[in-house]
Amino acid sequence: MSAAAAYARDNRDRHLDELMEVLRIPSVSTDPARAGEVKRAAAWVKERLRRAGCTRTEIFETKRHPIVYGEWLAAPGSPTVLFYGHYDVQPEDPVELWTSPAFEPTVRDGRLYARGACDDKGQFIIHVNAFEAFLKTGGSCPVNVKFLIEGEEEIGSPNLEPFIAARKELLACDAVVVSDTAMFDKKTPSIVHGLRGLSYLQVDVRGTARDLHSGTFGGSVINPAFALAHIIAALKDVKGRVKVPGFYDNVRKLTAKERKAFKKLPHSNTAWRKSIGAKALFGEPGYTTLERVWARPTLEVNGIWGGFMGEGAKTVIPAEAHAKISMRLVPDQRPKEIVAKVTRAIKKLAAASVDVTVTHIHSGEGWLADTGHVALQAAARAVKKAFGKTPVFTREGGSIRVVATFDRILKVPSVLMGIGLHDDNLHAPNEKIDLDNFFNGNEAAVYLMDELGNAAG
Amino acid sequence: MSAAAAYARDNRDRHLDELMEVLRIPSVSTDPARAGEVKRAAAWVKERLRRAGCTRTEIFETKRHPIVYGEWLAAPGSPTVLFYGHYDVQPEDPVELWTSPAFEPTVRDGRLYARGACDDKGQFIIHVNAFEAFLKTGGSCPVNVKFLIEGEEEIGSPNLEPFIAARKELLACDAVVVSDTAMFDKKTPSIVHGLRGLSYLQVDVRGTARDLHSGTFGGSVINPAFALAHIIAALKDVKGRVKVPGFYDNVRKLTAKERKAFKKLPHSNTAWRKSIGAKALFGEPGYTTLERVWARPTLEVNGIWGGFMGEGAKTVIPAEAHAKISMRLVPDQRPKEIVAKVTRAIKKLAAASVDVTVTHIHSGEGWLADTGHVALQAAARAVKKAFGKTPVFTREGGSIRVVATFDRILKVPSVLMGIGLHDDNLHAPNEKIDLDNFFNGNEAAVYLMDELGNAAG
Repeated sequence: MSAAAAYARDNRDRHLDELMEVLRIPSVSTDPARAGEVKRAAAWVKERLRRAGCTRTEIFETKRHPIVYGEWLAAPGSPTVLFYGHYDVQPEDPVELWTSPAFEPTVRDGRLYARGACDDKGQFIIHVNAFEAFLKTGGSCPVNVKFLIEGEEEIGSPNLEPFIAARKELLACDAVVVSDTAMFDKKTPSIVHGLRGLSYLQVDVRGTARDLHSGTFGGSVINPAFALAHIIAALKDVKGRVKVPGFYDNVRKLTAKERKAFKKLPHSNTAWRKSIGAKALFGEPGYTTLERVWARPTLEVNGIWGGFMGEGAKTVIPAEAHAKISMRLVPDQRPKEIVAKVTRAIKKLAAASVDVTVTHIHSGEGWLADTGHVALQAAARAVKKAFGKTPVFTREGGSIRVVATFDRILKVPSVLMGIGLHDDNLHAPNEKIDLDNFFNGNEAAVYLMDELGNAAG
Repeated sequence: MSAAAAYARDNRDRHLDELMEVLRIPSVSTDPARAGEVKRAAAWVKERLRRAGCTRTEIFETKRHPIVYGEWLAAPGSPTVLFYGHYDVQPEDPVELWTSPAFEPTVRDGRLYARGACDDKGQFIIHVNAFEAFLKTGGSCPVNVKFLIEGEEEIGSPNLEPFIAARKELLACDAVVVSDTAMFDKKTPSIVHGLRGLSYLQVDVRGTARDLHSGTFGGSVINPAFALAHIIAALKDVKGRVKVPGFYDNVRKLTAKERKAFKKLPHSNTAWRKSIGAKALFGEPGYTTLERVWARPTLEVNGIWGGFMGEGAKTVIPAEAHAKISMRLVPDQRPKEIVAKVTRAIKKLAAASVDVTVTHIHSGEGWLADTGHVALQAAARAVKKAFGKTPVFTREGGSIRVVATFDRILKVPSVLMGIGLHDDNLHAPNEKIDLDNFFNGNEAAVYLMDELGNAAG
């Protein structure tokens, strides 16, 4: 074991304490009331990068939440690796379903529970810890290091792409490393080489100027909740196939080889179903579960509301009804095109007697990388050393918008080395990170720097 | 002008002050946190009846909110009239849309704004004021008087029918008077002789044990908000016709004579549409607006909710989705049958991979009376005296469950003499009562006691 790997192992407790420190900051980027907390988290990250050994650390303000940058470039001739992560988190609601409070990190049964534990504070930090391990043990690092830790990932990174485009030289590198994904399962470490894109919309349906008494007016006027239900029901059929005209037009078909590789993975529909507490699995006909979540697009209602939602009975016809609707996209679907098609479909489905507005909230493209790339192969070796098992190459159904951006603007490969698990409750109550994974992750991050240094040499 | 009518006119300011006093009590019956306020309102009503001159006043406890009773029976040989009303009110949400706070009664432009101003505190009180006018001016009243003021009307009067059934002798009377309806319009006073019934359900759809990340799991599992939208969309077609099998089976058809009488009323679709701020009117094909709201049943979504309802974007698949669904019923639809049919339809429409429960919240039957009845004709004369115009006979789309109960258990006619207006914002923000109507209503209530006393003599 190298000195740096040993250092990572010896400093487990302190690294855990430090993680808990940043998890206590409720840096919920979507909530305007918490902008101050997001700022506080940014300051924490900057200070952590400085202490780890970065020779330059800086906070770049944006229109909303700041980007934290750090660098150490004292390894001339070695490759430069850009580590991307995000210090913002999802909202914690529904609050009442958390066993311990979302922003009071708590260890139970070898897991650390807190909002952001896995997504993404507990993941990006492993690379900071690894960098520190090299600096503290040998005063040097096998690669030049740049950190780019943003505060807007959970709201679609609206200011990151302009920042990357404007700072191409600052961010110039040979590879990007992102830890913001899940392992295939706890026994099967994995490197992710594909992600879905996302387009997120809000649909607002207005019927009347105010809520109406359902007795006095019921029958004479449209009900916007009904109008919305008719729209939603027509967007996807009861079998799970999206009915928006042209929705599947540019979907890249799975090859026979890909389908075969998916089938070889130790996936269990029963385990998948049980892990989410579903009565049955359900999805687009003709595809397996992994195909459905990794390689097929979706259209989902993320939220719906209107009228009386309290206890008991209130006899109103709601004045308005609303839905959050988002699409997960796969290569070669283009968000702009999909947003236009779905918006058109919704408008066309809208009853004449309501006003329907569709607002585009954010979008990001899907991404698919070649598993044979030198950086991906280096990561596979690092993971094997830390976790004792050769990782599999997988995809993820989620979206990390910036990966497609790095591809397009910096023209470098991304390595997605995640240490999350699928039951880590991302975006849900009781988010957690497995402590074995966190500690192994710190070591894998050390080995990755070694491997990337060697791979280029 | 009689002494009692003059008294009503001379005491306008005090009667208004007293009304404001009871409107300040937030007696929201559906909210368990406000049970104490409901109790406080009951005590206020009891004391008001005592001061008006009732020789017996009593609060009857129920399983939930108390019933207030008062009587004055010192006119032997004269008929006995039971005045029914309710002192409970609807919730005030959405709070932010009120111009002045719901429970701080405020006069603006000749209207008194407050939750309960029209429904029903500002209406039942006119009969208390009229009774007081007789007692204070002549020491006697032309009819024997019983007051039955309940606190559960807005939650479907669950304990009133058992109370009436158990206390038939206490409540024995020759006619019931209810002021809890609207005039046809401000220039057209009216007596209501028909009401719709109501059945109110809650539908809960559960998909998974927790909210899921829409990227990680999207495509592999059903979305309960989608499942709910598919159910709702199938319950009523886009033209406004209910699709539940057998829903229209027992609907009493409008006669040619009734349709003609409806058409003669000074109804304007444009005014109706403008009063509610709708882009267009909408309803069951083949019927006019008045036919749709007075004589045809409906099925409405009163509320819908599930998943993320906040600002911005949260990429979840909701674990569950919910709706409040209610039906307005007409003679001869039976609530029990309709609840069974709608529940069956919902269960049948439910996707196999979700759990759907349908909970019956409350029901009440519709009602239709003969306009030629002596009590209805007496009311028409009283209204003409106070408002200076012969009233029209109309129906209402709303439900007053107890009217059908009086019909069935006490076997007496009900007179529905309302002084509300259709834009009084019942069950909505900025509920109000027109002060002209309130003051004329106090006088009409005086004349009504006279007329009912004469009619029987």
